[in-house]
Amino acid sequence: MTVDEARERAAAALEEAGIVLTDAERAAIEVADFGLDQLEEVGLQLLVYVNTDRCCAKELVLFPNQACPEHRHPPVGDDPGKEETFRCRRGSVTLRVAGSPEIVLQPGEQFTIPPNTLHSFSAGPEGAIVSEFSTRSRDETDVFSDPRIVR
Amino acid sequence: MTVDEARERAAAALEEAGIVLTDAERAAIEVADFGLDQLEEVGLQLLVYVNTDRCCAKELVLFPNQACPEHRHPPVGDDPGKEETFRCRRGSVTLRVAGSPEIVLQPGEQFTIPPNTLHSFSAGPEGAIVSEFSTRSRDETDVFSDPRIVR
Repeated sequence: MTVDEARERAAAALEEAGIVLTDAERAAIEVADFGLDQLEEVGLQLLVYVNTDRCCAKELVLFPNQACPEHRHPPVGDDPGKEETFRCRRGSVTLRVAGSPEIVLQPGEQFTIPPNTLHSFSAGPEGAIVSEFSTRSRDETDVFSDPRIVR
Repeated sequence: MTVDEARERAAAALEEAGIVLTDAERAAIEVADFGLDQLEEVGLQLLVYVNTDRCCAKELVLFPNQACPEHRHPPVGDDPGKEETFRCRRGSVTLRVAGSPEIVLQPGEQFTIPPNTLHSFSAGPEGAIVSEFSTRSRDETDVFSDPRIVR
C-alpha cells in the first residue's frame, strides 16, 4: 500500500463514518509509517483539525489490526507533556497504557492518557476511527521505545 | 419544549449524524436555557466528552434558528481565558465574533475564537451540530452581555 493509497482509504473510512471533510483536509491526511516501511501492520493515518499552543484535536484512522508503536509525550519546557483523550468512533481499538490493564474501546467509549506515560494502541479486525482530544501536539518530541522509529 | 424533550431531540440529532453515545452520555446531555425560559429560540444542548484542567471537547446541538447569546471567556488566574475551535458537522452555524466579519460555517468548516473575545452564534434553519475543541471549560466564569442571563 502506497502513502497515497493509505490517504485515500483513510478519507473513505472517515466519510463512511459520516465525518465531513473539506477537499483540503482530505489531501492533508498524514500517513505515518514511523520509518519502519511496514505501513499495513505498523502505521497511522491522521487528520489534524486544530493544533494551537494550548490544545489540539485530530481524527486517527487505523486499518484492520494496524498498530501505533509504544511511545510517550515528555515534558517540554513548562509543558508537563501532552495529555490525550482517545474516543473510539468506529471499529475497536486496544490501548496499552503503562500502569493500567489493557483497555479495549468500542464506539462511544473513551480513555484519557496522562502526560509522559508510555502507551501503544492497535485496531481490531475491522480497523478503527478514533477522535483524539489533547493539549498541544509536538510529534517531533515524542519518545518511542523502538530506537529504529523515526517520527 | 421541556428540558427532557430537548435532551431527547439532541440525542436523536447526534445519533442521526452517526455520533455514537453511551446510554450514560445520552442521559447527561446538558440543556441550557440561560435562565431566559425561551429555550427554542435561545438555548443550547451540550454533550461534554472531556474537560480536564488543560483541555476540553464537546458536541453542541442547536435546534433550527436556536441561538447562544453573546458572551466571553475571561482570564482566570494564570489562564488567559478559554480558547475555542468550533467545527460544524451538520446543518450550518453563524458565528459573530468581535473584530471579525460574520462567519457562516458549513459542515467540515471551522473557526477558532481567541480567549476573552465576545462571541455569539446561532443555527441555520436546519439546526446544527458543532464540535467544540477548547482549553478548560469553566462555564461559571463566562461573562454574558445580557445581564438577565444565568449560566
